Amino acid sequence: MTDDRLRHRTHEWLPPEPDLERLKTLPGLDYLRELYLGDPRRVPIGQLMGFRPVRFDAGLALFEGFPDEFHYNPIGSVHGGFAATMLDSAMGCAVHTVCKVGQGYTTVEIKVNYIRPMTRATGRVSVEGRVVAAGNRIATADGKVTDEGGRLIAHGSTTCLIFPL
Amino acid sequence: MTDDRLRHRTHEWLPPEPDLERLKTLPGLDYLRELYLGDPRRVPIGQLMGFRPVRFDAGLALFEGFPDEFHYNPIGSVHGGFAATMLDSAMGCAVHTVCKVGQGYTTVEIKVNYIRPMTRATGRVSVEGRVVAAGNRIATADGKVTDEGGRLIAHGSTTCLIFPL
Amino acid sequence: MTDDRLRHRTHEWLPPEPDLERLKTLPGLDYLRELYLGDPRRVPIGQLMGFRPVRFDAGLALFEGFPDEFHYNPIGSVHGGFAATMLDSAMGCAVHTVCKVGQGYTTVEIKVNYIRPMTRATGRVSVEGRVVAAGNRIATADGKVTDEGGRLIAHGSTTCLIFPL
Amino acid sequence: MTDDRLRHRTHEWLPPEPDLERLKTLPGLDYLRELYLGDPRRVPIGQLMGFRPVRFDAGLALFEGFPDEFHYNPIGSVHGGFAATMLDSAMGCAVHTVCKVGQGYTTVEIKVNYIRPMTRATGRVSVEGRVVAAGNRIATADGKVTDEGGRLIAHGSTTCLIFPL
Repeated sequence: MTDDRLRHRTHEWLPPEPDLERLKTLPGLDYLRELYLGDPRRVPIGQLMGFRPVRFDAGLALFEGFPDEFHYNPIGSVHGGFAATMLDSAMGCAVHTVCKVGQGYTTVEIKVNYIRPMTRATGRVSVEGRVVAAGNRIATADGKVTDEGGRLIAHGSTTCLIFPL
Repeated sequence: MTDDRLRHRTHEWLPPEPDLERLKTLPGLDYLRELYLGDPRRVPIGQLMGFRPVRFDAGLALFEGFPDEFHYNPIGSVHGGFAATMLDSAMGCAVHTVCKVGQGYTTVEIKVNYIRPMTRATGRVSVEGRVVAAGNRIATADGKVTDEGGRLIAHGSTTCLIFPL
Repeated sequence: MTDDRLRHRTHEWLPPEPDLERLKTLPGLDYLRELYLGDPRRVPIGQLMGFRPVRFDAGLALFEGFPDEFHYNPIGSVHGGFAATMLDSAMGCAVHTVCKVGQGYTTVEIKVNYIRPMTRATGRVSVEGRVVAAGNRIATADGKVTDEGGRLIAHGSTTCLIFPL
Repeated sequence: MTDDRLRHRTHEWLPPEPDLERLKTLPGLDYLRELYLGDPRRVPIGQLMGFRPVRFDAGLALFEGFPDEFHYNPIGSVHGGFAATMLDSAMGCAVHTVCKVGQGYTTVEIKVNYIRPMTRATGRVSVEGRVVAAGNRIATADGKVTDEGGRLIAHGSTTCLIFPL
C-alpha cells in the first residue's frame, strides 16, 4: 500500500567495537570522555534515538536529546521509552565515571517516573545522571530529564553492579 | 569523514493521528486491536525500535522485538532502553486492555530489572505485559522479556493512572 | 520455655482518631504540624517502631529514628523494614505538606535502596523526605536516611495519588 | 499527661545470635527452616511487627501477619511500613532459599505498590515471596500480600546481591 503521508528517516552508525584493552586500563571517566565524546556514530543507540552525550565529570553525566515524531506512540505523544533510554544512559554513565581502573559496571535495574509528556514541540531536552552512592559492589544514581525552561519531564534512579574487569 | 564501515538503516512511519472519537467510544481492548494490530506504520516508536504487537486480550498484551546492531551501546551489547521501551509498551497496553469505555490511562512509573544481556545473536524476543491490579484510579501491571528458549532477559512493573476521557 | 536471655519492651499509643473535619479545612502543612508535632502517642506506628517527626516545611519532612535490637533480623542487623517505614513516612508527609485545602493523598508505591546496614551501634538516624514533583493528581518525592556522621544508609522515592477530600 | 485512652503492648524477643558457622555450612533453605521455623522469638522484627514465617520451599517463602491498631498511621489505617517490612522479609527469604552452601545475600532494593488499605478489620494476611531470577551475583524476587479472601493488598519486587560467605 502506498500512502502519501508516509515518512521516513535514515540513521547511521559505526559497528560498536569496544576497545577492551583501553576499557581495562583507563579510569571510567577517561574512557567515557575518549569514547563517547569522540565520534557519536560509535554509539548506535544514540544515533537511533536522537540523543548524545554533552559532558562527563566525576559522578555526573549530561546528555541532550531531541524528541521527534518518530518517537511517538499512537496516542499522540513521545513514547516513554525515549526518556527511559536516555535516563538509563545518563545514570549508567554517571556510575561509569566513578569506576576505577579495572572496574566495570552493569545496570541491574532502573526506575522512571513520568511527570510531563514530551511532544515535538518540547524541543531539546537535557538529561542528567548523578551518582548517589558508590561502593565496591553496588552503586546507585538518580537522573532527571528537563526541557529548556527547566521544567521536569521525568526522573529516575538506577542500581548498578560493580565488578572487576 | 567517510568510513567504509559506516552502516545505515531507514525506518518509515505514518504520522500518528489518534482517532480521539473512537478512543472515547470503544473499550480499551477494542481500540488497541483496531489501532495497533492494523497498520504497524501507525506506531512510530515500534517502527523506530523494531518491535510490534502480537496479541491483546483482557489484561494481557504481547509484543515481539528484534534486537539488532543499531540498538547497541558502545560496550558491545543491546542498550537497556530497548527492553525498557518494549516493557513500557507491553505493560501500558495491558492496562489499556482493561480500560472501559470513557477511561484513559497514562503511565506514571516503570521499573525494569535486567537479567541477561541481549545481542544480535539473541534473535526474536517476546514481551509480555499482564495486569496485576486494576482500580478506578490506579492500575498496575508487570512484564517480562524472554528469548525463544524461554530464558528471562528482563522483567519489570508499572503503575498507571486511570482517568475519565 | 523460660529463657534468661529473653528481653521485652512496652510501647504505648493513643487510639488514632483522625479529625476529618480539620483534615478537610486545613492545608496539609498546617494539619501535619498540628497533628504530628503534638502528642507523638497519636502516631502508633512511630511509637511501635521508634521514630518521630522533627520538622515540616513546604515540600520537606524530617524525622529521626533510633535503631535498636528489637528491629533486628535474625542475621544480626536492623531489618530493612525499619528504613522503609521511616522513608514511607517522610516521603509521604513531604507530599502532604504541599497538599492544599481539600486535597488528600495516598501512597501508590515506594522504592528503597539499601546502602549501609544499621545496627544498635549506628545511633540516631535522620530521615528526610523531599517533594520532587507535585501535580494535581500525582506527586513524587524522594528521601534519604543518614547517620549522625552524614553517611548515607538508605535512599528511596515514592509516588502518591492526590485526590479531592 | 495521663489519658484514659492510652493503650500499650509488650513484645518480647531473644537477642539475635546468628550461628555463622551453620550459616556457612548449610544451604539457605535448610538454614531458614532451622532458624526461622524454630523459636520465633529469635526474630526480633517479627515479634515487634506481628508477623511470622509459615513455610519455606526452594524459591518460595510464606509469612503471615496480623494488622493491628499499633500499626496505624494517624490518618486511620495501617501504615505502609507494615506491608513493606513483611514483603522485604518474604522476598529476601525467597532469595535465601536458593542460596547454595557458602552463599550469602543482602537486599539491595525493594519496591512496593499499595493496592488496598489494611485496617484492624482486615484480619490475618498472607505474604508470599517468589524468586524470579537467580544468578551468581544478583537475584530478584517478587511478592504479594493478600487477605483471607484472596484480595490483593500490596505487591512488590526486590533485587538482592549474592556473595560468597
